[in-house]
Amino acid sequence: MAFSLKRLLVGQPIATDRAHHQRLPKVIALAVFASDALSSTAYATEEILLALMLTVSFTAPETLQNLHTLLPVGLGIGALLVIVALSYRQTVYAYPQGGGAYLVAKENFGQQTGLVAAAALLIDYVLTVAVSVAAGVAALTSAFPHLQGHASSVIYLCLMFIALITLLNLRGMKESGTVFAIPTYGFLLSMVALLVYGFYRQQNGGLGDYSVLQHQQQAISNPAYQTHQLGFFMLLRAFASGCTALTGIEAISDGVPAFQPPESRNAAITLGWMATILVTLFLGITALAYMSNSQPIVALAEGTSQFAVEHNHIESTETLLSVLAHRTFDGTSAAWFYFVLQMFTTAILVLAANTAYADFPRLSMVLARDRYMPRQMANIGDRLAFNNGIIALALCSAVLIVIFRGSVTRIISLYALGVFLSFTLSQSGMVLHWRKLRPPNWKLNVAVNAIGATATFIVMCIILYTKFKGGAWMVAAAIPIIVMGLRKINAHYRSVAQQLSLENYRPMQGRRHFVFVLVPDIHRGVIAALQYARSISPDVQALHISIDQAREKRLREKWTLYSRGVPLEMLPSPYRSLVDPVVDHITQIQKEEPRSLITIVIPEFVPREWWAKLLHGHAGLLLALRLHEREGVVVTNVPYILKPLADAPGQEFAPEPQTTPSH
Amino acid sequence: MAFSLKRLLVGQPIATDRAHHQRLPKVIALAVFASDALSSTAYATEEILLALMLTVSFTAPETLQNLHTLLPVGLGIGALLVIVALSYRQTVYAYPQGGGAYLVAKENFGQQTGLVAAAALLIDYVLTVAVSVAAGVAALTSAFPHLQGHASSVIYLCLMFIALITLLNLRGMKESGTVFAIPTYGFLLSMVALLVYGFYRQQNGGLGDYSVLQHQQQAISNPAYQTHQLGFFMLLRAFASGCTALTGIEAISDGVPAFQPPESRNAAITLGWMATILVTLFLGITALAYMSNSQPIVALAEGTSQFAVEHNHIESTETLLSVLAHRTFDGTSAAWFYFVLQMFTTAILVLAANTAYADFPRLSMVLARDRYMPRQMANIGDRLAFNNGIIALALCSAVLIVIFRGSVTRIISLYALGVFLSFTLSQSGMVLHWRKLRPPNWKLNVAVNAIGATATFIVMCIILYTKFKGGAWMVAAAIPIIVMGLRKINAHYRSVAQQLSLENYRPMQGRRHFVFVLVPDIHRGVIAALQYARSISPDVQALHISIDQAREKRLREKWTLYSRGVPLEMLPSPYRSLVDPVVDHITQIQKEEPRSLITIVIPEFVPREWWAKLLHGHAGLLLALRLHEREGVVVTNVPYILKPLADAPGQEFAPEPQTTPSH
Repeated sequence: MAFSLKRLLVGQPIATDRAHHQRLPKVIALAVFASDALSSTAYATEEILLALMLTVSFTAPETLQNLHTLLPVGLGIGALLVIVALSYRQTVYAYPQGGGAYLVAKENFGQQTGLVAAAALLIDYVLTVAVSVAAGVAALTSAFPHLQGHASSVIYLCLMFIALITLLNLRGMKESGTVFAIPTYGFLLSMVALLVYGFYRQQNGGLGDYSVLQHQQQAISNPAYQTHQLGFFMLLRAFASGCTALTGIEAISDGVPAFQPPESRNAAITLGWMATILVTLFLGITALAYMSNSQPIVALAEGTSQFAVEHNHIESTETLLSVLAHRTFDGTSAAWFYFVLQMFTTAILVLAANTAYADFPRLSMVLARDRYMPRQMANIGDRLAFNNGIIALALCSAVLIVIFRGSVTRIISLYALGVFLSFTLSQSGMVLHWRKLRPPNWKLNVAVNAIGATATFIVMCIILYTKFKGGAWMVAAAIPIIVMGLRKINAHYRSVAQQLSLENYRPMQGRRHFVFVLVPDIHRGVIAALQYARSISPDVQALHISIDQAREKRLREKWTLYSRGVPLEMLPSPYRSLVDPVVDHITQIQKEEPRSLITIVIPEFVPREWWAKLLHGHAGLLLALRLHEREGVVVTNVPYILKPLADAPGQEFAPEPQTTPSH
Repeated sequence: MAFSLKRLLVGQPIATDRAHHQRLPKVIALAVFASDALSSTAYATEEILLALMLTVSFTAPETLQNLHTLLPVGLGIGALLVIVALSYRQTVYAYPQGGGAYLVAKENFGQQTGLVAAAALLIDYVLTVAVSVAAGVAALTSAFPHLQGHASSVIYLCLMFIALITLLNLRGMKESGTVFAIPTYGFLLSMVALLVYGFYRQQNGGLGDYSVLQHQQQAISNPAYQTHQLGFFMLLRAFASGCTALTGIEAISDGVPAFQPPESRNAAITLGWMATILVTLFLGITALAYMSNSQPIVALAEGTSQFAVEHNHIESTETLLSVLAHRTFDGTSAAWFYFVLQMFTTAILVLAANTAYADFPRLSMVLARDRYMPRQMANIGDRLAFNNGIIALALCSAVLIVIFRGSVTRIISLYALGVFLSFTLSQSGMVLHWRKLRPPNWKLNVAVNAIGATATFIVMCIILYTKFKGGAWMVAAAIPIIVMGLRKINAHYRSVAQQLSLENYRPMQGRRHFVFVLVPDIHRGVIAALQYARSISPDVQALHISIDQAREKRLREKWTLYSRGVPLEMLPSPYRSLVDPVVDHITQIQKEEPRSLITIVIPEFVPREWWAKLLHGHAGLLLALRLHEREGVVVTNVPYILKPLADAPGQEFAPEPQTTPSH
């Protein structure tokens, strides 16, 4: 039944030879790989504002005095975005097999640096899922504030969305590509509509009024919300917050093999489209917010700590995008368009997580192939998806959502550090790549990647400096731990390969094979096990563990009738253990004949009903667990299949049967 | 390591032949078996008052107008107590092997009625643990009110105490007897001191004043707390609430075999002691509360529902005993004695649960011997205790504590019904017993038990009537469900015994034995498995599941070198499953040769490190699960023990090894 449920949800299996059908055309690939990057325009500007608002005098918030810095910060991020996109365009051509930061760093700096990049990427993918889903839910609750009512309802919504995306991905890539095209393009068009109409209204008398002030007043009453001086540090922090706009820009370079041939060219074109759209939307929203003096609405709950406020852990109860859309469309005949925008925003944000669902399993597979991750990560599921990677990603991001209670701003504090570390490693690796290969125009290539590497390295330092206490320390601590874990796994696999090597291997010959059958009683199940034991060796001994004297006597009396010459040995068990006497017996045999091979045959009842399995002891299982790490010992259960209860007639409350199964 | 932790907590194993040492002298037996009954004096009077208080006019609570009914209700319960004790005294003599309600009902009414009694008893034991522990924690939090601070801290305290008692019982009975003597006798002496000094002060100017009123005022403000008319129903409910004083009175009759010989006589004497002490303490506390106008302190939290109040689900924040002790000792030079009493009350209440820990496992063992419970319940642990029963009881009561959030009053609403059902069945069974055997004076015996049966039957009806909505319905529903479960288990065991019977059994002869070895690759682990397969049958075939073409090619090339003549078959797996092709292959073989016996040999790596187990696939386990219910199929794992990582040198970042383990 669990099996057919899986088929219903995930679909029929797809054969291996259909694998090449699962390539994406550019228009679909843009939706799949760019949803992360594009969707970040829904929160990047807001994060800058939330940082700048800490420096606003809240006694007169209507002046929004320090918000004039929004525009230069936004322009700086836009410039950074262009630099990084150009830098990655070169990676797409240099690594048509998929140039993730792991591969580029490994090839050019060596395995160690590659693992650092891999750790940063793995963290990054998990955070992408958590941030995107949380931001999607924030867009939803901005439109329907009553969804915020209960604190944990946000968490449930997030988890529900994660489950949905996981399912879509388990079904396989191509189908999910189609599913993701609609929200991505819907969001794109809605944003264009918002910007066009927003700027039009702004030029013709300004956007509509929206009761921002009245909401913001609540924040003032919280004593923790003190005004900071707008200093260099706060400006840097605002910049660092906005850099989340760049997350996801590398996705295409990781996924080149998923494009239709010619892969590199198609991927580069798609990357160009994506960067153009991204810069346009981000700068457009930033400019509109600046010109119309819009800001996200925050309401500090009683009990919000000074720490939370200082480290930018404040939450918006209504997103900037929602405020802008309200001010643009409310009171016009297109007021309904507010809901269209919010729905598409939610959709693209929730689905943005899909970028990570495409890349996390692929990176895990590459690491598993290099023996740095469990080999199961390289298994391809029956729908041609890397199921284990997909499930691992879903679990990790769900845990993050629960820990951080679905708060975008708190998760985002962890986000950008890993991203920019992998940017830096990848692009400085590209510099070495060009210097090594020296293709025509290699100096230009070096220059582009060097600029990219330098810029992203500086930004990484800014993020580490301004966000350390606010959460980046967790990522800084997690990266070396993950690298150590990956190395440990690799050491294990290498050790196994060495131990299993057939070089100089001379298998032991002529080992004596002892077979022991456990006979708790005498009945059909035991006879079947005895028969089996006799069929695998002429050298069989039956063992009975003496606990119940009456049963022992009964067994002795009947034994000769059914034993067919197999000798029966009674093992005393003064402490009533069913396992210890057998283990002791085997230890004794192994001491006497160290080269011997021992098989323990255990008769086992297999009832059909699940609950009936609880009604039989599991001495066999316990014994298998105890002897599992013994060299030269094999534990074999010989099942005796019981009929289901309904098929086996029998008068209830019959007198106690004479022949009783045991253990 | 888990093993030595168990030894440290539970102690060294005790041999079977030392079993007869574990008998209890009377003084210890009183502590072990009577702690439940005696400890109920700590809450029985309070429960009567909590019911009566619903009829008090709270606008003038100082008048306590309806509390004059406390004394007659108390006297009625005292009389009932004497009747039931006399009735059970006869059971002790009639059933020296232990006359639990199950046994008595089964012998005299038949198995069906016995099972009803057994179900009532099992519920009763679980509730005994829950109520006693919760009341013990209530005594503790009365003395240290700040422990009530957080709602779940009461639950944690309860669970901690359950864990403690469980551990003591897993260590074995005799030692726990000694542990329980101190609190039982300490409580007894403290109660005597309270009563003597309390009555002395009451006669000489009255007990001290204690700010009862001021606390009670809080209750008035809750609109749910309306005054009921003191009618017949409310009086009956007060009586029913007080009947919890009788719980545990049957414990000695269940446990006669634990007494030193002559068992019956010693048990009867101990029962006499217990009943005398019980009646004295209960009536003493009731009288003192009545004369001094004392009552437990309740504080209804905002949001307490009308239903909770009407069905007596109100909580005392300070127990009646605590109020009495404060009023008796405060302001005197013995003020410190308040804490002594509260400590001993906590101790005896928490340990009262031990009565159930002695009886629940014993009843489960009896039921298991009769094949109505899983046979594991009859296993005697290595300290001569019925470990599985002890653990089952601990888990069930812990679940109850969590569900009812450690509230005495709410759990008590479920409590008395099952107890009085088993009383009624047991004592009416005794009537039949005497009429059947007709010993000298049998008519007197019949009369005593008939009075007992009638009285307890009437009380049972009262409880069902007055407490039905308040919680007794759950017990009324649970009993038939449990009876059905017990019968289902019995039906299963009888069916198994029938299927395993050797009558008319002719085992299949000359079955052909096919042995298949799974070879994912070629390495030492596979060679070991091949050797094993060859040793158990000359008819061996190797199976490889083709997923990775490169690996398949490598295997083909190397096969002849190592195969020793075993043929290799490639099973295609278009959907990349490691399990399905093997299952299909076996299905095919079984279709062709239905009488064949099939062994599947799976090479398995066994790493020493727990985490390394996650790094190897578990195709063997999955296959075993899929084939477990197949007639004639045996799955055998041949382990290949890997060295721990530290012992296996190897240069890190070595080139990809050629020979790689798989699956």
